[in-house]
Amino acid sequence: MENHRAHVVILGGGFAGLYAAKELGGKPVRVTLLDRRNHHLFQPLLYQVATAALNPADIAIPIRHVLRRERNVTVLMATATSIDVANRKVLLADGELEYDHLVLATGATHSYFGNDAWAAHAPGLKSIEDALEIRKRVLLAFEAAEREPDIVKRNAWMTFVVVGAGPTGVELAGAFAEIARRVLRDDFRRIDPRDARVFLVEAGPRVLSMLDPSLSTDAQAELVRMGVDVVTGGRVMAIDSEGVKVGENRIAARTVVWAAGVAASPLAKSLGVPLDRSGRVKVNDDLRAPGLPEVWVAGDLAAFEENGKVIAGLAPIAIQQGRHVARSILRVTEGTSPERFTYRDRGTMVTIGRAAAVADVRGVRFGGLAAWLAWLLIHIFFLVGFRNRLLVVGSWAYVYLRNARGSRLITGDVRSPLQRP
Amino acid sequence: MENHRAHVVILGGGFAGLYAAKELGGKPVRVTLLDRRNHHLFQPLLYQVATAALNPADIAIPIRHVLRRERNVTVLMATATSIDVANRKVLLADGELEYDHLVLATGATHSYFGNDAWAAHAPGLKSIEDALEIRKRVLLAFEAAEREPDIVKRNAWMTFVVVGAGPTGVELAGAFAEIARRVLRDDFRRIDPRDARVFLVEAGPRVLSMLDPSLSTDAQAELVRMGVDVVTGGRVMAIDSEGVKVGENRIAARTVVWAAGVAASPLAKSLGVPLDRSGRVKVNDDLRAPGLPEVWVAGDLAAFEENGKVIAGLAPIAIQQGRHVARSILRVTEGTSPERFTYRDRGTMVTIGRAAAVADVRGVRFGGLAAWLAWLLIHIFFLVGFRNRLLVVGSWAYVYLRNARGSRLITGDVRSPLQRP
Repeated sequence: MENHRAHVVILGGGFAGLYAAKELGGKPVRVTLLDRRNHHLFQPLLYQVATAALNPADIAIPIRHVLRRERNVTVLMATATSIDVANRKVLLADGELEYDHLVLATGATHSYFGNDAWAAHAPGLKSIEDALEIRKRVLLAFEAAEREPDIVKRNAWMTFVVVGAGPTGVELAGAFAEIARRVLRDDFRRIDPRDARVFLVEAGPRVLSMLDPSLSTDAQAELVRMGVDVVTGGRVMAIDSEGVKVGENRIAARTVVWAAGVAASPLAKSLGVPLDRSGRVKVNDDLRAPGLPEVWVAGDLAAFEENGKVIAGLAPIAIQQGRHVARSILRVTEGTSPERFTYRDRGTMVTIGRAAAVADVRGVRFGGLAAWLAWLLIHIFFLVGFRNRLLVVGSWAYVYLRNARGSRLITGDVRSPLQRP
Repeated sequence: MENHRAHVVILGGGFAGLYAAKELGGKPVRVTLLDRRNHHLFQPLLYQVATAALNPADIAIPIRHVLRRERNVTVLMATATSIDVANRKVLLADGELEYDHLVLATGATHSYFGNDAWAAHAPGLKSIEDALEIRKRVLLAFEAAEREPDIVKRNAWMTFVVVGAGPTGVELAGAFAEIARRVLRDDFRRIDPRDARVFLVEAGPRVLSMLDPSLSTDAQAELVRMGVDVVTGGRVMAIDSEGVKVGENRIAARTVVWAAGVAASPLAKSLGVPLDRSGRVKVNDDLRAPGLPEVWVAGDLAAFEENGKVIAGLAPIAIQQGRHVARSILRVTEGTSPERFTYRDRGTMVTIGRAAAVADVRGVRFGGLAAWLAWLLIHIFFLVGFRNRLLVVGSWAYVYLRNARGSRLITGDVRSPLQRP
C-alpha cells in the first residue's frame, strides 16, 4: 500500500503556493510544486530593487532551498500551459503531470486595460526583471540628462511619472523623489538631480484607496513634502516614448512606470469556471473552484468575497489562503470536510520614504516614524529564511543613514543613453 | 585665462581609467571620463557573481559616485567608436569630444581564437551580464537534470567544462565543484548534485602558468581534492550545444564556460600604431603610443614589455599604470618629461575554494589556509569605496560558514529548462 494518500500539485511558488507547500511538508501526501522561475519573490520589497536600495538576491530565494527539508515535496521548474480538469492533469510546455488535488496559485500581473502598446513605454513591476528594467530606465534618464544640451529635452529626461497610487505606486514615487533629492545629489556636473520632477497619477479620488481616507490624506501630505506632484482624478489617456497624456494635459516625461490594474494568470481560463472582470476565479467560501472539488485557488488569483467585497492582492491574504487550502486538502484526504476561509486582518501598512509610512492595525491608524518602524520590523520578521536578514537590514541601514543606494547599476541591454527610442 | 592647463579625456572606467581619474582629481587639468557602462567593476571578484556567492552590486559601483568629490572630473556614459588622432578627437556613437591628452584604457576581452561560433555555447566572463548568464546556465542545468529521465542526457546536464586554467578558470572550476558538492546537496529529490562532474581544460602543460611551477602543482592537487577533473595539454577542437571536443576525446556537457584568450579593445586599431597579436598597443616605456605623444595607454590594452616579456592582465598592473600615466600627463603639462614605467610586483595570489589558495609574494610561495586568508584580506582592502565592504564580508562569511550561496537566482530570458537548445 502506498504511503501517501494523495498527490498534490501546486502551481506557483509565490506566497500562496509556498506556504501551502510548507504546510503540507511532512504530512502523508506527496507534493509537487511547479514554478516557471526557480525563486520565490518577496514581492512587497520588489520596489526597493527597482529603486536601487536592495539587490535581487536580498528579496528572492530559490524555492527548492526553502523547501529542502520537506522530503515529501518535489520542486520542479516548468511552465504550465493549461489544466485538463476532466483528466486531472496539468499540461506543461514539455510534458504533463497528474494530480489528485490541484492548488492553483499562479497569481496576477498588472493590466494596461486593453492598451497593451503602453507596456513598452511604461513597464510594470512584477518580476526581478521588471525591477531591473525600471532601475535601468531611471538611472539612464539621469545619464541622458547630463549629456543633453537642449533644456526642453533635458527636462523630459528629468521627469518621472508613476501611474497608479496603490502601495506600489506610492512606494515607487517616494523612492524616486529620494533618489533625485538625496542619493544622486553630488554625482553630476551639468545637471542638478534635485531639479527632477516626480508625478504620481491616480485615476481615483485619493491615494491608497484601500486604506481609511484619513491615512490617504496623511500619505498624500507626506508625498508632497518629499517633492512628489500628486495628481488624483487623473485618467491616463495615452502613453508614448515622449510622455503621458493625463485627461487633457500632457506631461513630457521619458520615464514612466505602471503600477495600476490587475490581470489574472491566464491559466484560470482553462478551468472553465466563472471568472471576474480581471480574470480571477470566483471561488467558493472554502477556496475551491465552483464544481471542481479537487481544484483549490489561493492568492491573487482567487476572487474571494467577504461581506460582498473581494479581498485580494496582499501578501498576508495569500499566505493565509495557502495555509488554509493545505489544511483543507489534508481534511479531505482524511475524509472530513473543508472549512470556510476567513481572513484575519492583522493590519496594513504602506511605506512612503525615509522614516515615513502609514499604518492601519485593526482600526488603529497612525503615521510617521512609528508606522515606518513598525513596517520595518514586520518586513524584517517576514524575511525569515531569506538569504540573510542581517545583510538586508545592513543594506537598509546604509541606504537610510547614508542616503546611498548601493545598487545603482545599469545592466542588461544598454545603448548610449541619448539613443533610447 | 583658463584655469586648467589641458583637457584630459579618459576612455574606460576600469582599474586603469578610474585610478588615472582619481590621481588627476583636484589637479589643474579638466578631466572627462567616458565609459559605455555606468559602473566600475571589481573584476577579480566577478567569478563570485557567476557562482552565486556575491551580488552584482557587491562588486560594481557607479563610476560617477566614486569620483563625485573630484569636481574637475566629469563622467559621461557614452560609447566611443574611434579616435581621430590627427584632430585629437574621440568620435562617439552620438557626438564627439576633443582632447589635449587621451588616456586609452578600454581593456581587453576573451578571445575564441577565430572560432566565434563557440561564443554561443561557451560564454566568457567579462561583464556583470556575462556573470549572470553563467550563473543562469549552471543553475538551469541542475533544474534540467532534475527533470530529465534519460540517464545519458541527465549526465550531460550534470557535466561542466571550464576552458582555460588561468586565475579565472581555476576560480570558476573550484566554485562549481563547491556548488555541486556542498551548496546544492539537499535541494534536489531525483538527482544527487554531488554526482556532477567539473572539467578544467587547459591547452598548456600546467594550470596557472604565470605562477611558479611549484604553485601550479599545489593548485592542481587542491583542485583534484575538490573533485575537479584537470585536463592539461588539452586542446579544444570544437564546442557545440552537446559538449566539447578536446583533442580526440569528446566530453558530453551542456554547460561550458570560456576563460581563455585575450582580444584587445578594437579602439586600438584606430590609432594606426603597431599592435601585438592580441591587438594590444605596443607602448613606449612611458606608456605612450609610439609617435603619438598625447596618447597614453594603460591597463589590459597596453602590451608593456619588461625584460622582454609583456606584463598585462592583472588589476595591480592596471592600477599602477593608470596612476603613472596621470602623473606623467601632469609632468608634461608642467613642461617636464614623463618617466618610464616600472611595475612593482607586490605578489600574485589565486583562490581555489573554501580555505584554499596559492600565493607568490616576491618569491615567497605558499598555499592553503594562509594564502586564502591573505587573498581575503587583500581583496577586502581593495574593495575600498565599494558599497559596503562589511556587507561583502558578511556575504562571504555566510557562503563559507554555511555553505550557502545566497544569490542562486535564475533571471533573464528563461525558457523551460529542458527546452534549452
